[in-house]
Amino acid sequence: MKLSTKTLSVGAIGGTAVMAASPAYADVPLETGYIFNTLSFLMHGFLVMWMAAGFAMLEAGLVRSKNTATQCLKNIGLYSIAGLMFWLVGYNLMYLDVSSWIGTPMPWSSGGVPDAAALEGGEYSSESDWFFQMVFVAATASIVSGAVAERVKLWSFFIMVVVLTAIIYPIQGSWTWGGGWLSEMGFSDFAGSTIVHSVGGWAALTGAIIVGARKGKYGSDGTMTPMPGANLPLATLGTFILWMGWFGFNGGSQLAMGTMADITDIGTIYINTNLAAAAGVVVAMIMTQILFKKIDLTMALNGALGGLVAITAEPLAPSPIMAIIIGGIGGALVVFAVPLFDKLKIDDVVGAVSVHLVAGIWGTLAVPLTNDGASFGTQIVGIAAIGAFVAVTSGIVWMILKVTIGVRVDEEAEYLGLDKADLGMEAYPEFGTGSQSL
Amino acid sequence: MKLSTKTLSVGAIGGTAVMAASPAYADVPLETGYIFNTLSFLMHGFLVMWMAAGFAMLEAGLVRSKNTATQCLKNIGLYSIAGLMFWLVGYNLMYLDVSSWIGTPMPWSSGGVPDAAALEGGEYSSESDWFFQMVFVAATASIVSGAVAERVKLWSFFIMVVVLTAIIYPIQGSWTWGGGWLSEMGFSDFAGSTIVHSVGGWAALTGAIIVGARKGKYGSDGTMTPMPGANLPLATLGTFILWMGWFGFNGGSQLAMGTMADITDIGTIYINTNLAAAAGVVVAMIMTQILFKKIDLTMALNGALGGLVAITAEPLAPSPIMAIIIGGIGGALVVFAVPLFDKLKIDDVVGAVSVHLVAGIWGTLAVPLTNDGASFGTQIVGIAAIGAFVAVTSGIVWMILKVTIGVRVDEEAEYLGLDKADLGMEAYPEFGTGSQSL
Amino acid sequence: MKLSTKTLSVGAIGGTAVMAASPAYADVPLETGYIFNTLSFLMHGFLVMWMAAGFAMLEAGLVRSKNTATQCLKNIGLYSIAGLMFWLVGYNLMYLDVSSWIGTPMPWSSGGVPDAAALEGGEYSSESDWFFQMVFVAATASIVSGAVAERVKLWSFFIMVVVLTAIIYPIQGSWTWGGGWLSEMGFSDFAGSTIVHSVGGWAALTGAIIVGARKGKYGSDGTMTPMPGANLPLATLGTFILWMGWFGFNGGSQLAMGTMADITDIGTIYINTNLAAAAGVVVAMIMTQILFKKIDLTMALNGALGGLVAITAEPLAPSPIMAIIIGGIGGALVVFAVPLFDKLKIDDVVGAVSVHLVAGIWGTLAVPLTNDGASFGTQIVGIAAIGAFVAVTSGIVWMILKVTIGVRVDEEAEYLGLDKADLGMEAYPEFGTGSQSL
Repeated sequence: MKLSTKTLSVGAIGGTAVMAASPAYADVPLETGYIFNTLSFLMHGFLVMWMAAGFAMLEAGLVRSKNTATQCLKNIGLYSIAGLMFWLVGYNLMYLDVSSWIGTPMPWSSGGVPDAAALEGGEYSSESDWFFQMVFVAATASIVSGAVAERVKLWSFFIMVVVLTAIIYPIQGSWTWGGGWLSEMGFSDFAGSTIVHSVGGWAALTGAIIVGARKGKYGSDGTMTPMPGANLPLATLGTFILWMGWFGFNGGSQLAMGTMADITDIGTIYINTNLAAAAGVVVAMIMTQILFKKIDLTMALNGALGGLVAITAEPLAPSPIMAIIIGGIGGALVVFAVPLFDKLKIDDVVGAVSVHLVAGIWGTLAVPLTNDGASFGTQIVGIAAIGAFVAVTSGIVWMILKVTIGVRVDEEAEYLGLDKADLGMEAYPEFGTGSQSL
Repeated sequence: MKLSTKTLSVGAIGGTAVMAASPAYADVPLETGYIFNTLSFLMHGFLVMWMAAGFAMLEAGLVRSKNTATQCLKNIGLYSIAGLMFWLVGYNLMYLDVSSWIGTPMPWSSGGVPDAAALEGGEYSSESDWFFQMVFVAATASIVSGAVAERVKLWSFFIMVVVLTAIIYPIQGSWTWGGGWLSEMGFSDFAGSTIVHSVGGWAALTGAIIVGARKGKYGSDGTMTPMPGANLPLATLGTFILWMGWFGFNGGSQLAMGTMADITDIGTIYINTNLAAAAGVVVAMIMTQILFKKIDLTMALNGALGGLVAITAEPLAPSPIMAIIIGGIGGALVVFAVPLFDKLKIDDVVGAVSVHLVAGIWGTLAVPLTNDGASFGTQIVGIAAIGAFVAVTSGIVWMILKVTIGVRVDEEAEYLGLDKADLGMEAYPEFGTGSQSL
Repeated sequence: MKLSTKTLSVGAIGGTAVMAASPAYADVPLETGYIFNTLSFLMHGFLVMWMAAGFAMLEAGLVRSKNTATQCLKNIGLYSIAGLMFWLVGYNLMYLDVSSWIGTPMPWSSGGVPDAAALEGGEYSSESDWFFQMVFVAATASIVSGAVAERVKLWSFFIMVVVLTAIIYPIQGSWTWGGGWLSEMGFSDFAGSTIVHSVGGWAALTGAIIVGARKGKYGSDGTMTPMPGANLPLATLGTFILWMGWFGFNGGSQLAMGTMADITDIGTIYINTNLAAAAGVVVAMIMTQILFKKIDLTMALNGALGGLVAITAEPLAPSPIMAIIIGGIGGALVVFAVPLFDKLKIDDVVGAVSVHLVAGIWGTLAVPLTNDGASFGTQIVGIAAIGAFVAVTSGIVWMILKVTIGVRVDEEAEYLGLDKADLGMEAYPEFGTGSQSL
């Protein structure tokens, strides 16, 4: 999301936002522009909401069947908690009267219809903006659930979601999109390679480390036991859902649709988003063919996501060929990162850290390649500052949970599966349990 | 849907609709407003159409595998039948020249492009309106299929769908949205907690009673045999689809998008819809944790739906906290109602009556809490009148079917599963049949 | 897509497109119209993109479990390849400076924001147009993957996709939508019954013939072994996704949304699209009930698709009853064609040729029934010319692949399943393999 307009969002609540610089507004009636801008948030917002289903299906497909129902529950639960927390405290902590470091933690309330007589270009309903921002924070939380799947305690995970969506995400978000110190410095992250995806990735990484690997995943002799996902078509569906939702994620982050320039930009963003994902798939297919002599479906799916995450920091400025390169490298990084984390014995069940953190860092670093307004130095400051903040705060929360109510189910529950142990049900009670189930 | 505009819908066919009261129209060019209003119906309409897939997946996931293909067939069949019937007779029975009690049963025909010179504010294409109304009637029919799953005769069910979508739904719909006696009385049901969801719920309830419980479900000694759904990730997907579609369901029921006020309202509706669903999930999770010591995934899913149904009668007026309360109570009612219906030996396979009838009544009763234009007395009259009409008419149809072609498959077919018995196929021919299958 | 506007698309790249004939443009401000037109491409474009997921789920559900992961990979791979190829050469080959027979094969580049001062009615961003055209070419490629499933070599299939999306589809597309000789002749194919669906169908047919039937499918004694799909709810989901996406496919092909007439037409298109699909389902249900004494779920699903394909050549002109007839015949043709191809021992795993080629020809032939601007003679010329071109070129490519790297996996891999043989993984590793698996 572009800072200039994002700052407007706050001002718009009082009905006095101004965007006088853009001459294009002269030619679209002001109220028409308001409707278009608001529509963009709503339409792109429901696409991003849909990503919650994408994460749910991706993760439900990549865990083993004995943990599938729990994974579904986590995903609908986290989406619900994220929305409630973002209303209760998160949104205003991120956007209301932001000092350099923090906004105002209080419940969000509706701004209502602005005074038409005072309307200037670029405004939109504050409600539509809230909706769009809310689905972003939910995406951040979704990233975590995949990494710590199959062994994390349900309520500990939900408490982590509460803190992440109410406090951690909004504070770091205020630094850039809220108009804080990183935005003043010139940090550029259009739709959130760092602010959404790396943030989720860091919290996922600290979780994977502190919760620990699944029993039996890594042998003491350096061996690694594959624990394949139980339902790959669901994982494929999840990836397609995420891909579709990403048009909303990146396209809506233009934050305006009420001028010829804005909607033309959204078209460019759709194209670059699609080309980057496509390149991520093709690169992952070719690389796994070369490296492993077999194409790996889950790598192809994660390649798409790696390409999508990579283009998210700057989906507007690149030419098609640059979008392909940025996305292709994103896909390649995922193919390298997934086995690397396994070598480090960091057990990330769905590859969330490789996709969202690694490709997110790459995408943020790549911004200056195509956007003259960004510099590598500032990008590194932003990546490092947000990374340090989220790694430390999420790590502290995971640690507190570990020493209090615990973050991990007991060994018997893990062996039996969380579905039977915690939920008392089975995701697929009739499909039998094949030999690969542990 | 708001009555004032809904009445317009009928007038708009003749191209003479007027909404002079709203000063906002002065500032959006009339044809631009027409395009926005029409776009709202189309965009929100395809979201509601998508709910047909949501019901299909929810139900396919919650039945046993031996009945899954049949449940899929019922869902694509009912959506198809509903659309054809609503064209053939339903729409005009609901909206054309409505006397106090009934419209004009005849095929719908296109209104074409209105005369631009005669255009006034608030109009939209009658085609887009038809499309939007059609997907609503399909949702009503979808509610029934889940309740009577696993034992109803296929063609009997389809005949019920014909009558429901051609006659029962349109007649009661004409009373409020068509401008009939309930609307004159002041009954308020914005998007259909009663007019859509309770109507489906009543027809589901009479069906569940008259068709009878599944063999073996309730023992003569008061025991209840769980018959768990075969594919919970599909049920989760279905819930997410329904949640997404509900933005269209409630948002589109604003019936206009061509003014600043209208699209700002749609944003508020999206937020309230989302918060109510989220609250339904969280309440259902906490309640099942307390009551049963285990979170129940299907209750969490039904909690979301209960929250969504509850907010549907009035998604615009509530503040966020009121939306959370209304949705949360909706979720709680579902958690209480599901075991209650089991105690009454009413076998509702997917909890459709608990979700759509119980939460629908609650949502309709709650309207006066936030909307000064509604009164409890009138709300009760509407709930009771529509309930009595649908319970009686749907009950008569189910009874006629029972004494003629029968409503229930024979015992052998039920034991074998409808898929093999009626369709000659299996939904999952390779996945084996686990011990839990009956 | 209507030719007149489609020609504009090319002109619009230079920013000088004119559509002076339509008086309606006088009343919507020009930039507002530009935004609406562009929005139509983007919104309908993401719906068509979503069809890629629909094809993936339909096919993943209709193949046997041992080939499911490979089918998922093919679908995400082909969507990716199609987008990259259409950027690299396809789009401009189809639309840039088209002679009667061919355009200009070179990478597409962005047109940017047109000069507002030179703007005339009917324009839109060239980026949004590219996006919309791209998702169409992907749909064409998706059709092929289902027909040759369960035995085609993965990389051979991908090479076919490269040629189809880079060269074959764009060349024949230039003849009509690019303004070439077929458009000059008056060939009418609004959204692509022939240009998209039959093209995919022909390439699928030549593939099915040249790759050959699955081992064991057809006995030398004339018997046919059923090889039922492993996951029918997924196939149902895929059909619903395709149905939803089709509103984008046909609605977006209006190519404009910035006038009252255009958006009213889009509403009509939505209705006709939905009625045709509904009729296809109902006809397929009734016919299979009569012919086979059992309703066939996969026939009902393919009936929906047959109805959709049939209405695609002319979704605007028909009255509702004509849309029902056209779609119903489309569904009926599928019910007849599927066993017919089996009799011919042409092994089309998902019925893609019956749906997309047979119903596509029917829909294209039916255009003159409702559209006075079309003639049967010209329609036949178009169907035949495009059919001959695609059958010959795709046949040549399949043959070259066959004599070089081969188009078919070896017998052992086919028996074992492509997932284990080619990917080294299983789609459902825990669900066991039932007796019906070969």
